[in-house]
Amino acid sequence: EITALSLAAASEEQPLAGTSLLLTAGPTREALDPVRYLSNHSSGKMGFAIAEQAQRLGAKVTLVAGPVSLPTPAGVTRIDVESAQQMLDAVMAQVEEHQLFIGCAAVADYRPIAVADNKIKKSAESMMVEMVRNPDILATVAAHSKRPFTVGFAAETQDVAHYAMDKLKRKNLDMIAANDVSKPEQGFNADSNALTLYWDGGSQALGYSGKSDQAKQLLLAIAKRL
Amino acid sequence: EITALSLAAASEEQPLAGTSLLLTAGPTREALDPVRYLSNHSSGKMGFAIAEQAQRLGAKVTLVAGPVSLPTPAGVTRIDVESAQQMLDAVMAQVEEHQLFIGCAAVADYRPIAVADNKIKKSAESMMVEMVRNPDILATVAAHSKRPFTVGFAAETQDVAHYAMDKLKRKNLDMIAANDVSKPEQGFNADSNALTLYWDGGSQALGYSGKSDQAKQLLLAIAKRL
Repeated sequence: EITALSLAAASEEQPLAGTSLLLTAGPTREALDPVRYLSNHSSGKMGFAIAEQAQRLGAKVTLVAGPVSLPTPAGVTRIDVESAQQMLDAVMAQVEEHQLFIGCAAVADYRPIAVADNKIKKSAESMMVEMVRNPDILATVAAHSKRPFTVGFAAETQDVAHYAMDKLKRKNLDMIAANDVSKPEQGFNADSNALTLYWDGGSQALGYSGKSDQAKQLLLAIAKRL
Repeated sequence: EITALSLAAASEEQPLAGTSLLLTAGPTREALDPVRYLSNHSSGKMGFAIAEQAQRLGAKVTLVAGPVSLPTPAGVTRIDVESAQQMLDAVMAQVEEHQLFIGCAAVADYRPIAVADNKIKKSAESMMVEMVRNPDILATVAAHSKRPFTVGFAAETQDVAHYAMDKLKRKNLDMIAANDVSKPEQGFNADSNALTLYWDGGSQALGYSGKSDQAKQLLLAIAKRL
């Protein structure tokens, strides 16, 4: 009886036991030439918090990380990448072996069309940089024939619910976690967040809390729907 | 006699005693919208090494730093900035009170012409970003009526001596420290460097060594010409 209770408690504490999670985190860097790049303000904190909490909740975690200054959570397998293309390659090489994918990285939507071999000399008063769209990692994962349960993030500065629901449907995701990065107390470099989760037919506001707590609540909400 | 010897020794060890140094370090970040930016691979290590060594050599040091993850050297006054325009403003507010200026920051040559208030939505397959030239901090300092002894850096990937000498003359600098960032063992993220110094009528190759040693050798070469 004690054993049965303990097992029940363990199962309740580790709802992701037996689940393998593939996760992206941080920004990507898109080279303009050997010294210049385009990037964004993602700190990777939210993704690394998810990796740590998922491992505690019993999951086997593979973390594909853009350039960030964060230590690897204990027990997590980490693959470091720079560009969106490198991140896609690392994800697609791993995707069939995972049941759950969370795209938490702030992947650059565009990259400069050509990387200059040598540093561009400044000679003109103005310069046009032609950018082309990067591959869409989330949509590529969601369109895979052996797709995992696919969760995306939406960092928005306006009409958050509208853009999040649109992204959920357009990219065929199973869930999306939205946050309003125009609010200074949440988002890219903050230690806290206030995610709202959307899925087909439901939503859940997690309220304002630290990123570890947000990560755990997100993972518990996913575990119910896996 | 002992006192005279000690003073001589102290003076030899602190050739920058009584000198005030204004120094820039790190990259700048140029905003494209609230989340995206253009930057470069400068780690700030060389500039921070110069700040630390200058303070040891007796100088009063003010360090204007772009976004880097480095601790402030003991005894150094630090002003944090993000963009080239902010760096220029901080430098010009301080320049008259300093006898020596070293521009070690990798200032972005161009910035996006307009910063979007809200995150740019990706809707097109390609996008043109119009960039305009940033203010030239080194040249602005060197053109000031009460100019300090002005030292610049030249990070090049080809024809290093040619571009360094051209920059020295074109910007009216007193000295330029050049390095070839195409070599993997020196430059932006390396812990070592191999600077060559150029001034009107002379040059000095510092050889390959750690950034602290490079910084000290550079400062001793400057102290001879102040």
